[in-house]
Amino acid sequence: MAGTMLIPALVDLHIGNRDWLVFVQSAIFTGVLSGLVVLATHNSDIRFSPRLGFLLIVAIWLTAALLGALPLYFSTLPISFSKALFESMSGITSTGATVLTGLDTMPRGILMWRSLLCWFGGLGFVGLGLLLLPSLRVGGIQLLHMESSDKSEKILPRIHQIAQGIVLAYLTLTLLCTLLYFVAGMGMFDAINHGMTTVATAGFSTHDSSLGFYAHNRAILVIATIFMILGALPFVLYIKALMPQRLSSLADPQLILFFSIVVGFSFFLAIGLKLETSIGFGDALIATSFNLVSVLSTTGFATEDYTLWGAEALGIFFLVTFLGGCSGSTSGGIKLNRIIILWQLASASLTRLIIPNAIIKMRYGRTEITQDVSQSALLFIFLYMASLVIGATALTMLGNDLGTSITGALTALSNVGPGFGDTIGPVGNFSTLSDPSLLVLSYLMLAGRLEIITIVILFTRRFWSR
Amino acid sequence: MAGTMLIPALVDLHIGNRDWLVFVQSAIFTGVLSGLVVLATHNSDIRFSPRLGFLLIVAIWLTAALLGALPLYFSTLPISFSKALFESMSGITSTGATVLTGLDTMPRGILMWRSLLCWFGGLGFVGLGLLLLPSLRVGGIQLLHMESSDKSEKILPRIHQIAQGIVLAYLTLTLLCTLLYFVAGMGMFDAINHGMTTVATAGFSTHDSSLGFYAHNRAILVIATIFMILGALPFVLYIKALMPQRLSSLADPQLILFFSIVVGFSFFLAIGLKLETSIGFGDALIATSFNLVSVLSTTGFATEDYTLWGAEALGIFFLVTFLGGCSGSTSGGIKLNRIIILWQLASASLTRLIIPNAIIKMRYGRTEITQDVSQSALLFIFLYMASLVIGATALTMLGNDLGTSITGALTALSNVGPGFGDTIGPVGNFSTLSDPSLLVLSYLMLAGRLEIITIVILFTRRFWSR
Repeated sequence: MAGTMLIPALVDLHIGNRDWLVFVQSAIFTGVLSGLVVLATHNSDIRFSPRLGFLLIVAIWLTAALLGALPLYFSTLPISFSKALFESMSGITSTGATVLTGLDTMPRGILMWRSLLCWFGGLGFVGLGLLLLPSLRVGGIQLLHMESSDKSEKILPRIHQIAQGIVLAYLTLTLLCTLLYFVAGMGMFDAINHGMTTVATAGFSTHDSSLGFYAHNRAILVIATIFMILGALPFVLYIKALMPQRLSSLADPQLILFFSIVVGFSFFLAIGLKLETSIGFGDALIATSFNLVSVLSTTGFATEDYTLWGAEALGIFFLVTFLGGCSGSTSGGIKLNRIIILWQLASASLTRLIIPNAIIKMRYGRTEITQDVSQSALLFIFLYMASLVIGATALTMLGNDLGTSITGALTALSNVGPGFGDTIGPVGNFSTLSDPSLLVLSYLMLAGRLEIITIVILFTRRFWSR
Repeated sequence: MAGTMLIPALVDLHIGNRDWLVFVQSAIFTGVLSGLVVLATHNSDIRFSPRLGFLLIVAIWLTAALLGALPLYFSTLPISFSKALFESMSGITSTGATVLTGLDTMPRGILMWRSLLCWFGGLGFVGLGLLLLPSLRVGGIQLLHMESSDKSEKILPRIHQIAQGIVLAYLTLTLLCTLLYFVAGMGMFDAINHGMTTVATAGFSTHDSSLGFYAHNRAILVIATIFMILGALPFVLYIKALMPQRLSSLADPQLILFFSIVVGFSFFLAIGLKLETSIGFGDALIATSFNLVSVLSTTGFATEDYTLWGAEALGIFFLVTFLGGCSGSTSGGIKLNRIIILWQLASASLTRLIIPNAIIKMRYGRTEITQDVSQSALLFIFLYMASLVIGATALTMLGNDLGTSITGALTALSNVGPGFGDTIGPVGNFSTLSDPSLLVLSYLMLAGRLEIITIVILFTRRFWSR
């Protein structure tokens, strides 16, 4: 992270903005702090335990958010520390909700730093989802743990190789996306920034009007749509493509659900848009698929205020904000594999009410859903909904109107970005919210990103008892 | 039900309103229909099965709602059948949301009929909760099934006695409430109507301003508060008082939670109200406890627009709309025993993530929470939240604003009555909503009243297969 801070420092130095010093100072502070932590711990004999795992994950994301806020706070931007923390948290959790305005004329170092936060946050989350959370048995994604075709294989080299595969796939996607943006007509700086925030399904832009700035350029919208989709698919797919001998083939039901939603809702919305406006069907489909994928993949780019597309659209976008993309991707939300597990579970439980002793095998694709998986998926959905209700209540009590509170809590928890309504809707931003509200939202973004269970568990007495 | 329709007929005949004929016609139709059903089925050899149980429960409530809508539709009121059905459903599910305005000058037969629907709906729901749902293992209320101290006792006489106890307790509470209202200064007609809708925690009033009509009469507000609380407590308490030898003592944790919420939030809100207005603390406490209990018990009376009491109040009322009263009462919502079970379950699951092989006994009071109970409580909360999200989405797609959609779905599902916002808030009503919206809300009221699982199970293929 310290090294990464030197990138915006170089950018600002190049354009002659005095913030370059702030980035260098932050880099030194971060570097020294990290060095001290390494010194303090490198000799200790630490045994890995679930407890340590949870603590480590939360500590890493929280520390990254705090350190990431430093250059924003000390820069020439006139913002409070809560706002800087919100912006940094929004980046590192790949949410993409912003409190900043005047992006188009903002020093490029800051813009670059925001994009980098998103990019590293997205990469970290894929690693978290594929490597750490399954072995911590969080939220029913244990299923993704079972994919090695070679059970006798040693675990460590496998982790190492998967990690390599993730980085390689992520880097390849980003470079490809950047290149295509550039070819399609974006400036290089914009292409690099949007390349990073697209693949991370994060949604920070270098323009106040988000990708609406390029709304006239169909190629850019289509490229963005494709790479948001690629960011929201399980990265296992790409790792498999890179090292096919390592992983058994995976017919993942969440892929089918994902593409059904994208295609079905995009066409439905496009037909509605075509009927109500004079726009051509092709352009309508580009606009609807872009904005739908943006919300479903929890990216949060917007070309226009889709909440004005009529009642049906409003309902669909509200529903889709809950869903999110696939597990094992950079995408947030409940995630589609959980929707499938919960559906199976609900159906099995209902059957048992009719036929009390029925033995029902629940399956996710070809894998059996064990008690352990279904229980933790249910625990996730309960904590998700409880977080949403309590978060919305807290935001309401802090003086926000009910619509802003509910959709703000929802969009933060799902790491989407924009909410609904005049204030935090697709064409608004979070700059007018009070500092306490921004802290609540920052917590929700963190909780959503860490699959809630990881952070809620720190609040239990048992976690801290011997 | 046919017999009951003769009561408003007599009332209307007495005041000379020509609707008396509609009630008599509806009574004849209902009576003939019931007679035909009895004739068609009295010789069949029907074995009770869970399937039959679910079907019967839904059929009874749905039929009651449809038949209850007849006199409203054919009366002098100029309303559509959807509106009549909504009003009837709102009554029979003890919700208390209304599409009618001009209640103060409305023919008394109609007013009486609305109250009677509420009253019978409330009585039916207590019976459902104590006698039927536990043996159908719905939503984790199996726990309430375990209270007989005499395990060897035959099941049928016990059911008969419990049913007697329920009717007796319900009747006693209603008469007492009516009497006290009358003594405190209500007219006899108002006292009878409000007596019925208070104990049923339903919330229909004979005035457009609800109990705000009596806002100057502290005694009436206190009486209402007390009897809404009594309606929201588990009726097992009263049956125990009536036949103490039959049931073992029950230290029910949901009672403690219920009273903690009532006392804690009432005082918190009263302090806020006292600070912001010139009102005395006693009056503030009467107002806050009345309106809080009204929402928590899912009654839905209002004396004024409590959503204007400031941000903290708005947050609290939003949160409380989810909760509801105790299981085994006339109250709707998630219900407090489930909150306790889910809390225990979440805490146990989180512990197991830290200590994978920990054996954790979950307890509800002194009873152990079995796998079966915890699973069905989780299933309930999942279906509740899914119904809420899908219901809100449907209402949004029908053209309602997001606030009205979300809080409308919520208040219908929890059987509270008023939502939030200008349209359906405490001082508004549902009359301006479109017919399709009212049908969605009617479904949600029915689903909420029948603990969701009972009605969702009818949508499964397995239910209808051999």
